Amino acid sequence: MIEQLNPDGTLQHLVTLEGLQRPLIEQLLERAQTFVRPLDAPSSRSTALAGVTVANLFGEASTRTRGSFELAARRMGAEVINLELHLSSRSKGETILDTVYTLQSMQIDVLIMRETEPGVPGFVAGHVSSHVSVLSAGEAHLSHPTQGLLDALTIRQHKGNFGPLTVAIVGDVAHSRVARSAWRALTLLGTGEVRLMAPPAFMPEPEEFPGCKRFNSLDDAIAGADVIMMLRIQKERMAETSVPAAADYFAEYGLTPQRLKLARPDAIVMHPGPMNRGIEIDSAVADGPQSVILQQVSNGVAVRMAVLEAVTERVRRLRQGA
Amino acid sequence: MIEQLNPDGTLQHLVTLEGLQRPLIEQLLERAQTFVRPLDAPSSRSTALAGVTVANLFGEASTRTRGSFELAARRMGAEVINLELHLSSRSKGETILDTVYTLQSMQIDVLIMRETEPGVPGFVAGHVSSHVSVLSAGEAHLSHPTQGLLDALTIRQHKGNFGPLTVAIVGDVAHSRVARSAWRALTLLGTGEVRLMAPPAFMPEPEEFPGCKRFNSLDDAIAGADVIMMLRIQKERMAETSVPAAADYFAEYGLTPQRLKLARPDAIVMHPGPMNRGIEIDSAVADGPQSVILQQVSNGVAVRMAVLEAVTERVRRLRQGA
Amino acid sequence: MIEQLNPDGTLQHLVTLEGLQRPLIEQLLERAQTFVRPLDAPSSRSTALAGVTVANLFGEASTRTRGSFELAARRMGAEVINLELHLSSRSKGETILDTVYTLQSMQIDVLIMRETEPGVPGFVAGHVSSHVSVLSAGEAHLSHPTQGLLDALTIRQHKGNFGPLTVAIVGDVAHSRVARSAWRALTLLGTGEVRLMAPPAFMPEPEEFPGCKRFNSLDDAIAGADVIMMLRIQKERMAETSVPAAADYFAEYGLTPQRLKLARPDAIVMHPGPMNRGIEIDSAVADGPQSVILQQVSNGVAVRMAVLEAVTERVRRLRQGA
Repeated sequence: MIEQLNPDGTLQHLVTLEGLQRPLIEQLLERAQTFVRPLDAPSSRSTALAGVTVANLFGEASTRTRGSFELAARRMGAEVINLELHLSSRSKGETILDTVYTLQSMQIDVLIMRETEPGVPGFVAGHVSSHVSVLSAGEAHLSHPTQGLLDALTIRQHKGNFGPLTVAIVGDVAHSRVARSAWRALTLLGTGEVRLMAPPAFMPEPEEFPGCKRFNSLDDAIAGADVIMMLRIQKERMAETSVPAAADYFAEYGLTPQRLKLARPDAIVMHPGPMNRGIEIDSAVADGPQSVILQQVSNGVAVRMAVLEAVTERVRRLRQGA
Repeated sequence: MIEQLNPDGTLQHLVTLEGLQRPLIEQLLERAQTFVRPLDAPSSRSTALAGVTVANLFGEASTRTRGSFELAARRMGAEVINLELHLSSRSKGETILDTVYTLQSMQIDVLIMRETEPGVPGFVAGHVSSHVSVLSAGEAHLSHPTQGLLDALTIRQHKGNFGPLTVAIVGDVAHSRVARSAWRALTLLGTGEVRLMAPPAFMPEPEEFPGCKRFNSLDDAIAGADVIMMLRIQKERMAETSVPAAADYFAEYGLTPQRLKLARPDAIVMHPGPMNRGIEIDSAVADGPQSVILQQVSNGVAVRMAVLEAVTERVRRLRQGA
Repeated sequence: MIEQLNPDGTLQHLVTLEGLQRPLIEQLLERAQTFVRPLDAPSSRSTALAGVTVANLFGEASTRTRGSFELAARRMGAEVINLELHLSSRSKGETILDTVYTLQSMQIDVLIMRETEPGVPGFVAGHVSSHVSVLSAGEAHLSHPTQGLLDALTIRQHKGNFGPLTVAIVGDVAHSRVARSAWRALTLLGTGEVRLMAPPAFMPEPEEFPGCKRFNSLDDAIAGADVIMMLRIQKERMAETSVPAAADYFAEYGLTPQRLKLARPDAIVMHPGPMNRGIEIDSAVADGPQSVILQQVSNGVAVRMAVLEAVTERVRRLRQGA
């Protein structure tokens, strides 16, 4: 497992939430909370990252997440460049490292990368200089740590303590980096009960989500839940598997207002976006009073500001001291 | 029709010039004029948009217009992000609004969009929060309001009052958002006579441009004109219609120095660019002393600065008060 | 040949190193040196280009070079916009100039362009206004002047004077703009001996590199050399020519640790990147103690800062005086 902390205990990289300690996570969430503003207020600004250069490397198209990171970095005063670079591991990993060392030699301080190929962000983090940070913006089906943090922040805003909570993660869990990072965040923060609900073809192996309760009935999974996290289903996957097509999927696994009544009356509904309305979620739920989906988006920028501030903290302190 | 004004009468959106009042248009032109600089002088700068986030959403490729908006916004101190998002209306409009609400939740203040699909900018403007503005950078064949304003500004710089003017709009009028927005601006500003000249296949229905005189002879259309606005012809459209191919088109509808002599001696020649030299316009005219084509480009940045300042005015005032 | 100097002797354009004088080159290198920082230090910053607008026009994809120019410009306070414009010479050059005059009319001060078509940057430089500068970021196989300067800066950092040096340029010389610009820089700076080593199919005509010694044995070419500049070989070219495929190429022309021993013990190894490890260069050499390849990347940003400062100097002085 990749070492993500500097010797002084500060965060250098954020590739996965695995292995991080609860106080660090809580500190990030508290800091992120200070960057949250009402929608009609001016966005939060700081000059903390003045003089810092951030590169967005998105091998996989992702306008939303790229935009969220870009806004977070620029609102803190960083220089941001967008590079359409795909870091693949062909040629025994040499191509990746040549690219990374090239960027490092241009004095880029933070590399934000989304990769379809598992292992790339961690591999890069293991090879950059001690003053360079790597942030994963999504790695294959494995990890999406800032998404996990923004999910945790959203739950915290509504529920406070995680101890008494029952959280249901619903949908294509097997292929979801969102589910994996949310589960890690929830576990680290001491969530009482985490439930997984997936069609059989989309249920992950038990060893991957130890301690979770598993369901194949949506009604059972959300009964009494405090938080329902819906996942995006990739329509292409339906055709490839035994999972029923859109209308049938909705009938069996879609979150409707009727079903939502099975959860606690104050339950919140989450979705990482973009939603497939009428497939995994009913519009009446997505736009209803229990939905916190857009708040998740706002929290995404705040969390990314907190993470950028944290991973550059040591370097900025050293440079100011110099 | 979409309401583009705030309750206090200031501009919130600019999706179309339709329905706007003459004093507002004149105010925008006067403000734009203050941003115009000689070509060799430093570009006009302001900090009016500091703290404002502008997103460029260009579903249709348009390097020039995107660049013009981007420069306008950045020279006023805004944070600009470019997102390759195409807002389509599939899934009953839900996809569009989910995308728009997502951007809004990242505290983006101004959405600049170019769309091939009619109705999208107005639909979005009808749904965003009261502190968010929508600017159309071109909507199907229907509207291109900042182009209409920059055309008006250019004419005003050369001719002063619109009342005594005869303006000929020449080319593929039927498919042209430039023609529609120019006509609206000219009408609002009280232009004496607006003429349309188009090959039969490219002549719009009469009810679309009420009050215009219609011509199918270029010589007749420009006789005595003060302003000749040439439109760009899409070469692909020639093949699809009865419109003659390049050389024949030029012979019949191209603006040559000989023909230009039919207009008033001080007539100006305009074109929204990019030009098809040798098809709709002769190079000797495009580069001649009566051409104001490059001045239109400069005015484009100035007009977009004025519009950005105007649509954010109310929000900036509220925030400063807070 | 294009005039690149202003009447006052300052640099207006940098399209080629051909025709420039040694003192100007030395001045650029000395200035660039002041922008070099240790890798873990903050990047060099200045506000020299505040108020200056730079447009990146990359007709040919080039993430690295585009990024290097973008960082150089932004770290000096310039406004940078990236435009995906391809300047082709169709329609007798009119398309190019219309595009260029359009950009100029938006008050863009510096056009940075990479072009596959020979002659375009010089043609543009010959037509822009006196306050606009053109920088080539690579022109066909002909010229890549900032690469030539960064190569010279790297050699200067290690070797000081060029007079006593023997430099071997190795690989696909015929198709290489890197080789041409390096050779020009080396010649201008009075390099003792420049050697070319290329497979027969890749050896340029003698009149193109007058004064160079030609080799078709790598061992002979690098014997006693102070500097070995490896070129990137385009894999597609191997198939088209009599040049041997990867493994055979490496056996005959690849730089290995064994071969490197033939050079002077303090010889440095250069490569413009991206490298084909195992084809033109052995990883043990690329990553070895004599490699200065990543230093070239760092020097690239510094050189581009110096060039941007130089080409805007006159305009900035005039504007400050005004």
